Amino acid sequence: MEILVLGSAAGGGFPQWNCNGPLSRRARDGDPRVKPRTQSSIAVSADGERWALFNASPDLRQQLTEQPQLHPREGLRHTPVACVALTNADVDHIAGLLTMRERQAYALYASERVQAALRDNPIFGVLDPALVERRVLPLGRPMALAGPEGGPIGLEVEPFAVPGKVALYLEDPQAGDDFGTQEGDTIGLRIAAVDGDACVYYLPGCAALDAPLIERLRGATLVLFDGTLYRDDEMIAAGLGRKTGRRMGHMPIAGPEGSLAGFADLEVARKVYVHVNNSNPILAEDSPERAAVEAAGWQVAEDGLRITL
Amino acid sequence: MEILVLGSAAGGGFPQWNCNGPLSRRARDGDPRVKPRTQSSIAVSADGERWALFNASPDLRQQLTEQPQLHPREGLRHTPVACVALTNADVDHIAGLLTMRERQAYALYASERVQAALRDNPIFGVLDPALVERRVLPLGRPMALAGPEGGPIGLEVEPFAVPGKVALYLEDPQAGDDFGTQEGDTIGLRIAAVDGDACVYYLPGCAALDAPLIERLRGATLVLFDGTLYRDDEMIAAGLGRKTGRRMGHMPIAGPEGSLAGFADLEVARKVYVHVNNSNPILAEDSPERAAVEAAGWQVAEDGLRITL
Repeated sequence: MEILVLGSAAGGGFPQWNCNGPLSRRARDGDPRVKPRTQSSIAVSADGERWALFNASPDLRQQLTEQPQLHPREGLRHTPVACVALTNADVDHIAGLLTMRERQAYALYASERVQAALRDNPIFGVLDPALVERRVLPLGRPMALAGPEGGPIGLEVEPFAVPGKVALYLEDPQAGDDFGTQEGDTIGLRIAAVDGDACVYYLPGCAALDAPLIERLRGATLVLFDGTLYRDDEMIAAGLGRKTGRRMGHMPIAGPEGSLAGFADLEVARKVYVHVNNSNPILAEDSPERAAVEAAGWQVAEDGLRITL
Repeated sequence: MEILVLGSAAGGGFPQWNCNGPLSRRARDGDPRVKPRTQSSIAVSADGERWALFNASPDLRQQLTEQPQLHPREGLRHTPVACVALTNADVDHIAGLLTMRERQAYALYASERVQAALRDNPIFGVLDPALVERRVLPLGRPMALAGPEGGPIGLEVEPFAVPGKVALYLEDPQAGDDFGTQEGDTIGLRIAAVDGDACVYYLPGCAALDAPLIERLRGATLVLFDGTLYRDDEMIAAGLGRKTGRRMGHMPIAGPEGSLAGFADLEVARKVYVHVNNSNPILAEDSPERAAVEAAGWQVAEDGLRITL
């Protein structure tokens, strides 16, 4: 199984278009210790030929252009991308669907909640319903992924609910502390090769490590996990925003309730932070925070990172 | 007045993600005579400091990253982009608005028809209404462009209806040959400096040169015009699609009703093709079609083209 990190940044990318903070400035100035990153997406393949995308970022066209394995190979219209699966309805995970038009057949997997968000936006009608089949991911049940014609691609996923938050543009301010969040608004995925033992957990958004999640991830071979913020209040402290990580549905890396502490005893063989926000100091390879996560056995994903299982 | 072509390709960009046609292949292989291009957008400034974007393409984040003049310059959050104006509601002209989020103030100009299309898609709610003021462009009347606080930026626009077609995802198949197209679905813009005579006509989509348009453009200093297709049936002939240019709301370059013939007697000082589709042979600098348009006094825009008036 091959895993390709297409984009390792959170929403807005890195540098973010309107951010003049110290990290975005260093990236824009070409500092080699602070590498630019596009928005959150991975591609996975069991055979190196047919690929599943997980999330479709606003930077998808650039990401596909930069990865020769994802270029069309035959005929006049073609893509090695057989299907796309979404983990939530955030703009940074669905806007790339607007690139995947032009009469191309593929399958589009998402929870019923996320499928509903797509249906409620007529602009996604550019995905011709005769070509793009929308399939519901049922929570808690393994499901074989298939291309548009139903042919298997050698991968299966098990979607599971994780603590999270409904997408910003779907928040209901009248609905209390959770803004109307329901099960299926944010999911994690166990992605496995149908043949063999290769398996990766993909959780680009996760608000807390609760007991079921801890049991699920214990002893995993590979986890790609929410690395949005280092500290829960770092955007406020830096003057870059008004929201905590928790308010945005993301648990921090540091602190007693952070992922560093939460994963300390989980015996996960390889742990990789993805979905890293432009405010997160781990983006700087010379920062003490980067040293701290590496000392704890974590890797910080870069665009183009390739992992073979 | 400075005009910066951010993206010179039509919807899908060049190469297009799923296109394996000869032109996309040459661009992907790095042929220097067939340059890659991002999707349709220009930026205009009267003072080199405050910019107006015209259309927001899906490639906007990449386009802003590549243009130092459009990088943030001060404070923690900033952009030199004071406002955005849209010429229609096509995906290739509005998807970039999803990049222009992150609590940034600017003004968003569009015809009432295009504003309605944005309102009908809740995803554009990520543009915080407290920060992004949506203003209606009235047809046929000059209007000063202003930033989010209402401060003038030294530019005025005159929007005018042009023959065109409603956006693909808004087509009404029951509505006859025009799919329910109404006035305001496609507009052209006269963009002028408030001080001085500098003035450009911007028409990235235009289905026909009718009599009012001919009179309007006659003797202009600079026109950026719809260069989508060279021949009306080129996508069908190449096996790349099932639609003619006219069906998509774009007049061809060649032929008795094409723009080469239509502009022949208009005495426009500088004529530039923008919004060029990946099927259009003028993208190859060694093609006879490229030679033909250049012989007729046209320039084919590339990304990053800068014109000072």
